[in-house]
Amino acid sequence: MKRRNFIRNISLGSGIALSSPSFSTEKSILEKPQTPPKIILFQGDSITDASRNKSIATYNNPDSLGNGYAFLAASDLLEKFPHENLQIYNRGISGNKVFELAKRWKEDCLDLKPDVLSILIGVNDFWHTLDLGYSGTIQTYRDDFKAILDQTLTAFPEIKIIIGEPFVIQGGEAITDRWFPDFDGYRTVAKELSKEFNTTFIPYQKLFDNALERADYNHWGRDGVHPSIAGARLMANAWGHAYSLL
Amino acid sequence: MKRRNFIRNISLGSGIALSSPSFSTEKSILEKPQTPPKIILFQGDSITDASRNKSIATYNNPDSLGNGYAFLAASDLLEKFPHENLQIYNRGISGNKVFELAKRWKEDCLDLKPDVLSILIGVNDFWHTLDLGYSGTIQTYRDDFKAILDQTLTAFPEIKIIIGEPFVIQGGEAITDRWFPDFDGYRTVAKELSKEFNTTFIPYQKLFDNALERADYNHWGRDGVHPSIAGARLMANAWGHAYSLL
Repeated sequence: MKRRNFIRNISLGSGIALSSPSFSTEKSILEKPQTPPKIILFQGDSITDASRNKSIATYNNPDSLGNGYAFLAASDLLEKFPHENLQIYNRGISGNKVFELAKRWKEDCLDLKPDVLSILIGVNDFWHTLDLGYSGTIQTYRDDFKAILDQTLTAFPEIKIIIGEPFVIQGGEAITDRWFPDFDGYRTVAKELSKEFNTTFIPYQKLFDNALERADYNHWGRDGVHPSIAGARLMANAWGHAYSLL
Repeated sequence: MKRRNFIRNISLGSGIALSSPSFSTEKSILEKPQTPPKIILFQGDSITDASRNKSIATYNNPDSLGNGYAFLAASDLLEKFPHENLQIYNRGISGNKVFELAKRWKEDCLDLKPDVLSILIGVNDFWHTLDLGYSGTIQTYRDDFKAILDQTLTAFPEIKIIIGEPFVIQGGEAITDRWFPDFDGYRTVAKELSKEFNTTFIPYQKLFDNALERADYNHWGRDGVHPSIAGARLMANAWGHAYSLL
């Protein structure tokens, strides 16, 4: 009873502040005790960032979720599971390599106390060694990635983690022969860490390789790194499947 | 052979301008003759607009598609039908009533030569009579709507049209008793016109009424007019179903 009265008071309070609450508002809030929030966090680089508005830090907001797979996956979950009080954050930042995730891990992961963490990182860890003078190696990638996974599981032993495989869209304008075989090593590291930490793994490379049998790279992501709308939808489908297996 | 050579030349030309084309680019373009485009146009008010960037006029662009049901529906189609050369435009404008659609119909519909036209309009035709001094009546709504449908079908007898029912999310902050029963008349007009012009109809009101059994208006669209991410996904699911019936 105490909990229900508390909720009722919040409802009336906020109702007065905004506009007079309708009967149906009070009724529906009174009937259903609030479910504790389930916090889902997307982390990564530009593929996850997807032009999100970084001045909006809140969850379940279309501007702060961007226009990529994270937004699409969020829209699926929010429609399918309206009772779960999902709070979905995107904290991907364009250009990030895993050491940059590590630097902001407290603020942009641990402080959010996620129940589910999705990480897609690695393409820049390799790409930026080609032309941008980045000197990190595959060992740097492994060590930094391992460190944030360790940190996260120490803080939240019950957390569910999804690791997305770094990928390229073959044929894309930025993808030259210089990427191979070195880039494949980063994919392998992500997969090995996923196994080591017993997380769910999304094999994005295979997903895009298969999609190329249906249409060429122009359809899925012209530059070979950043998915198109179709590519983002493809990823969100795979992400949703991974989530359903948690 | 002539067509294939022409395509090859375009490919090489644009390839030189951007970056040297990879072998796989040329190959895939040469192997598949270009499918003629299938143009899909979303028209409507703020629900369709959904914060799209109006300085970007192009198709299949996440910024120009906004972050509402049109973007979500587009992402579904582009992923599912990669071979159809879909070109998907959003030309919804916040605040529009049907007479405002009519004023820009040549530029924002006919000139785009759509194969599929989706229209969701009507909530402002009623809402703006309440507090914004708009003097249009339900007859204005019917006449203007009928006129744009007539114009469209005269220009493109083979076009497929989807009409979305104007709707409210019951309990939402902007939805008061003053809306009823008058608003229901606008829903009826949209349905009658859909029947008269033999278009596909999406019963959004029933969709949201049913959704309210799963969660309250805060989840689907707090103000009762503009859907949340979850509400937009709900609409896009219904839209995709309507599209599959065309």
